[in-house]
Amino acid sequence: MPIKISPLAPKTFKKTQKIDGVKVSSLHCGLKSKSKHDLVLIKFDLPSTIFGVFTKSNMPGESIKWNKSIIKEKKVSAILINAGNANVFNGEKGKISQQKIIQKISKDLGLKKNQIYIASTGVIGEPLKHEKIIKKIPTLIKSLNNDSSSWFEAAEAIRTTDTFPKIYSKRLKSNRSLIINGIAKGSGMIAPNMATMLSFITTNVNLSDKYSIFKKMFNQLVDQTFNSISVDGDTSTSDMVLLVSVNNKQKKNLREDSYLEFKKSLKDLMQKLAHLIVKDGEGASKFISISVNGTKSDNDAKKVGFSVANSPLFKTAMAGSDLNWGRIIMSIGKSGFKFKEKEISIKFGNYFVVKDGKESIESSSTLLRKYLKKSHIEIFITLGVHKGKSIVWTCDLTKEYISINTNYRS
Amino acid sequence: MPIKISPLAPKTFKKTQKIDGVKVSSLHCGLKSKSKHDLVLIKFDLPSTIFGVFTKSNMPGESIKWNKSIIKEKKVSAILINAGNANVFNGEKGKISQQKIIQKISKDLGLKKNQIYIASTGVIGEPLKHEKIIKKIPTLIKSLNNDSSSWFEAAEAIRTTDTFPKIYSKRLKSNRSLIINGIAKGSGMIAPNMATMLSFITTNVNLSDKYSIFKKMFNQLVDQTFNSISVDGDTSTSDMVLLVSVNNKQKKNLREDSYLEFKKSLKDLMQKLAHLIVKDGEGASKFISISVNGTKSDNDAKKVGFSVANSPLFKTAMAGSDLNWGRIIMSIGKSGFKFKEKEISIKFGNYFVVKDGKESIESSSTLLRKYLKKSHIEIFITLGVHKGKSIVWTCDLTKEYISINTNYRS
Repeated sequence: MPIKISPLAPKTFKKTQKIDGVKVSSLHCGLKSKSKHDLVLIKFDLPSTIFGVFTKSNMPGESIKWNKSIIKEKKVSAILINAGNANVFNGEKGKISQQKIIQKISKDLGLKKNQIYIASTGVIGEPLKHEKIIKKIPTLIKSLNNDSSSWFEAAEAIRTTDTFPKIYSKRLKSNRSLIINGIAKGSGMIAPNMATMLSFITTNVNLSDKYSIFKKMFNQLVDQTFNSISVDGDTSTSDMVLLVSVNNKQKKNLREDSYLEFKKSLKDLMQKLAHLIVKDGEGASKFISISVNGTKSDNDAKKVGFSVANSPLFKTAMAGSDLNWGRIIMSIGKSGFKFKEKEISIKFGNYFVVKDGKESIESSSTLLRKYLKKSHIEIFITLGVHKGKSIVWTCDLTKEYISINTNYRS
Repeated sequence: MPIKISPLAPKTFKKTQKIDGVKVSSLHCGLKSKSKHDLVLIKFDLPSTIFGVFTKSNMPGESIKWNKSIIKEKKVSAILINAGNANVFNGEKGKISQQKIIQKISKDLGLKKNQIYIASTGVIGEPLKHEKIIKKIPTLIKSLNNDSSSWFEAAEAIRTTDTFPKIYSKRLKSNRSLIINGIAKGSGMIAPNMATMLSFITTNVNLSDKYSIFKKMFNQLVDQTFNSISVDGDTSTSDMVLLVSVNNKQKKNLREDSYLEFKKSLKDLMQKLAHLIVKDGEGASKFISISVNGTKSDNDAKKVGFSVANSPLFKTAMAGSDLNWGRIIMSIGKSGFKFKEKEISIKFGNYFVVKDGKESIESSSTLLRKYLKKSHIEIFITLGVHKGKSIVWTCDLTKEYISINTNYRS
């Protein structure tokens, strides 16, 4: 299958900035066909502080089970990522394969097993050929490096059906030495709850002293970014977002008055990566943001947003630049909440299509028709007078999605 | 848009059989473009007993609101059905338009308003041009007829994106004079909870004396048939299944020992119509039945079944005749229930692909590859040792679905 790069791909990529104390390498071990890289090692010089959010699937992959069992230790020394095989539903065999890999890394690098994280993405239910991985670990270790091109290569290597690598970086304004870097993957099976999505974020900011505060901050930001996107409503078995505060003895502590700034920068980075995932949604030709407000709670707003975002009928209308706002009404109707018709307004960009429960005159404007043809569509839905609000992001549903997924394995 | 008839369409249609006391007519009033029929009147000689199940959408159309308000009377004298406009989200105007139509039928036929049912299907949020309907009511009344071709024409007229009419009929074996007839429509926006689906069933069996027993029976059968199908997971605002026991003074009572036979016949008919809807699923090339068992309750089994049936990734794999059973595992995982891997088995037709939590040797058989190319696929999923079970029906997701829905309004 020839890969056509998403029309929504960014024109340039933001390079990662150097953080001391962490290195990365990647290579081809043979899990993906052809000679594409499919294996990545991230290595920390010293045990570093880790935060993680994992898939809510009840059929989680081996990597998820393992990582969840060790995260209470809060420390990471290495992360091994493979693409091409998800190591899910492989029973006892899958568990043993993974243990052998962890054993090898532990031995070769002299690390505690419970500081070694694994991430796997790819086909479900195919035995993981762990020998292929194990054989390459010495080479991976030898090639560890800290330059930005190594991180770019890693972002390339963790792709499955992604058409472009996802990479981003932030520097805090108030202190330019404070850095956050991130890479991510994911393009299909993306829905709330960490669906086929991997992201690895590193920072040189010291987050270990106030672990519980930063844990809460990170979880909240995951909810507002990676868990607010959807490509097809499917939820993967293997996905995770990891944030590591790299321990390099420099102890770059945040002043209390910089917490908000740090939070904002981290959110920017996470949101940027989440958006890149949507923009690489399988077959996507439009990036769509859906803002919902006026509900009783933020969570209600998010549920309605996802009800719209996951509707195949809404998504196909968007693909056709068709102002079929009835499909938004339908999606609101199936979301399970009650609203008063006359409190409902819907805007596309600056144009009201429904205002206070009635179709607006603006819905037939030629400017709106033009707007609908754009590749970035913003929709604002007001459902009442309450204070709940949320934004979710999705893409349209095109024939390309079908092509990609009809032949994924062949 | 040229209509290509579904490859899963039946080769022949079963004609309705004559039931005294009910007539039907249809014509073109102008809600659909071109000269296709878009308006149907079903008229009962005497007030007859009615049962109804309606959409669970919280944004219901005017027809649903009205019918729900009168069904407690249990009596019907006429049903007016229009295609081309759903009369949903039209505010006070939509309500008034509908009342004018009811008023006209009431006056022209001398019927009580609360015995007049309305069904509307089509675009949401476009004002209903009730004058077009009202003008044609006298002609509709004049053309009322009881022959099978009139019913066939009615089945044709209620279509929207349907590519073939849905019609079926049953006779009880133990008493050949007992008849059940049914017509239906629906091809997109089909999901649990009565999604874009209309069905009208008539019988000459007297169901009025034991209303509550037959109401319970009907609701249960709707759950097992019309509410066990899904095309795209979307839920419509306007849909309903009505069952009418036609009052023709013949009082064809069921003997108590025929209840089960009647229930079975009614279920057969409802299941047949539900299957025809799936077979006309927009763009469908495969009809797929998913049987789930071993769960704690039937409802759990149904939820897992729908989690699979509504997964775009599963549906696209089926479109490609691709045995990507990992996507079934993913869908089970996102359904929200916990199962033991080693109690999970998955069969495609007669072939185990997963047995007791392990990929089966049969999963690589060439016979299975052949089976996957068939247009009717049966999947059996065992999830544990409990007694819960359910069957849901769906179709695959093809490029044709996208084509149809990208340009629905244009």
